[in-house]
Amino acid sequence: MSKKVGIIGAGVVGTAIGVVLHDKGYEITGVHDKKSESTKTLVDRIGCTTYASPQEVSRSTDILFITTNDSAIPDVVDELAQSRAFDYGQVLIHMSGAQTSAIFDKARALGAWGLSLHPLQSFASPDMAIENIPGSIFSIEGDQEAYEIAIDIVERLKGEYFFIEQEAKPLYHAGACVVSNYLVTLVNLGIKLLQVSGVSRELAGRSLLPLIKGTIKNIERAGIPDALTGPIARGDISTVLKHLDRMEVKGADLLPLYSCLGYYTAEIAREKGTIDDEQRQDFQQILGRAMLKQDMIK
Amino acid sequence: MSKKVGIIGAGVVGTAIGVVLHDKGYEITGVHDKKSESTKTLVDRIGCTTYASPQEVSRSTDILFITTNDSAIPDVVDELAQSRAFDYGQVLIHMSGAQTSAIFDKARALGAWGLSLHPLQSFASPDMAIENIPGSIFSIEGDQEAYEIAIDIVERLKGEYFFIEQEAKPLYHAGACVVSNYLVTLVNLGIKLLQVSGVSRELAGRSLLPLIKGTIKNIERAGIPDALTGPIARGDISTVLKHLDRMEVKGADLLPLYSCLGYYTAEIAREKGTIDDEQRQDFQQILGRAMLKQDMIK
Repeated sequence: MSKKVGIIGAGVVGTAIGVVLHDKGYEITGVHDKKSESTKTLVDRIGCTTYASPQEVSRSTDILFITTNDSAIPDVVDELAQSRAFDYGQVLIHMSGAQTSAIFDKARALGAWGLSLHPLQSFASPDMAIENIPGSIFSIEGDQEAYEIAIDIVERLKGEYFFIEQEAKPLYHAGACVVSNYLVTLVNLGIKLLQVSGVSRELAGRSLLPLIKGTIKNIERAGIPDALTGPIARGDISTVLKHLDRMEVKGADLLPLYSCLGYYTAEIAREKGTIDDEQRQDFQQILGRAMLKQDMIK
Repeated sequence: MSKKVGIIGAGVVGTAIGVVLHDKGYEITGVHDKKSESTKTLVDRIGCTTYASPQEVSRSTDILFITTNDSAIPDVVDELAQSRAFDYGQVLIHMSGAQTSAIFDKARALGAWGLSLHPLQSFASPDMAIENIPGSIFSIEGDQEAYEIAIDIVERLKGEYFFIEQEAKPLYHAGACVVSNYLVTLVNLGIKLLQVSGVSRELAGRSLLPLIKGTIKNIERAGIPDALTGPIARGDISTVLKHLDRMEVKGADLLPLYSCLGYYTAEIAREKGTIDDEQRQDFQQILGRAMLKQDMIK
């Protein structure tokens, strides 16, 4: 039996999930977006109906994806709840990493089930999302009664899944932000250090990419802590002191982040077993102090 | 005219540079390693001579690579200087990121030139190094008189190069350490946050890889600050507060690093222009305080 899916919010994620679920045999009954032109890609690619109101989409379907911006989801839920556009046993799904299924509480009061179904992927464009969603690892959080629906979706997409407790979702989301958003910050720190050493920003960025990619490969191959190399891993305090000394002269604003990362790196070197506990402490004292040299709260 | 190259230290880097320079038309006159079996790969692949002493290698050649462990380089230089095994105008090269050409000062006193020639690459094995050295970006630091030799090497390897001042080398090296060693620390933070949210370590690592790779692609495509996405980039303070609140309950030891990275991320979001200066300050006050909640110096 083909399952009926409706979509409210036809941005990158809404468009992509519509296309991939259609390809995997789901019937996409309808789509709505505040900006009606946003539904064009989806309509062109899978020939589904565009509805003028979210209520019409909700009423046409058993599984409703609300894939608007995170901040707009509560308004959509409110509007649908007020017009009683939810059915008993209907499954509502959002794909936000930051939000939990609690955002569906008003719909739950009307007998619907709520799920957060989040693929650990980055989507720069609809085409990239369509390519990347299948085979992804998804987190599932929400009403157990709807797990079966979530699992069916993931399995048809040949993906993997795990469950997250509602209260643990912020930790999970923080972890995802660290390796995506904060990775930009880490690379920026590397580029800035090359810049203060006299290299142009463009060349610095290009120079560091092979190191970054090599490290990712090494993490995949060897895992953590084994993938850790460099001065801290080999207990080479004098090299780290040279970094700190020079950074104080040129690039003092980079000291806290450099030092904080080094502080945690010493833990990993200890786990790897290439430094002993005394060496870890030495590194952490030096780096902990260097970290606090700048006034972070202005 | 074919240039003569000798190699002392036949580890991963020494072996690889011997193979790739031989392939590009250099004559490898000889190789020495304290552990004589280490030279086997090089001898087998390019048929060069193994010498029993470093002096013999040095005397056989115009360009001498000293590619031992960083910490052993000064001893090799001392030993060769004591036996006057350097020639006037001979070029000595090491490939360490951490060391400068100052390590060759005793040889310079005897009329030799010193260079640090460092490829921004990661080498897990000799084969990987042989594959990755050609086309790399190299930093060159040392005696101007020997620049021509360094440039010839890089150009034959179809690489690129830039020059670094001796006193700036620690900043350059710190930058390289950030994107390689500290990248392991960043990924470990992401994994630990998923672990405290209830995901197994193995699955956490595997789940985050697509996000990491997607972010690297995005940095390559859009550059920094444009590649930055996520709650800080969109000024979503409530999501960051949820991260911090939950982390205080579970995973308080991760707060300083999470917060320190967030602090610097707010700068990048400001540069991107998606938050204003007041929002940047708000983020930095919250994150700066959270960072200092843990006692880092024990």
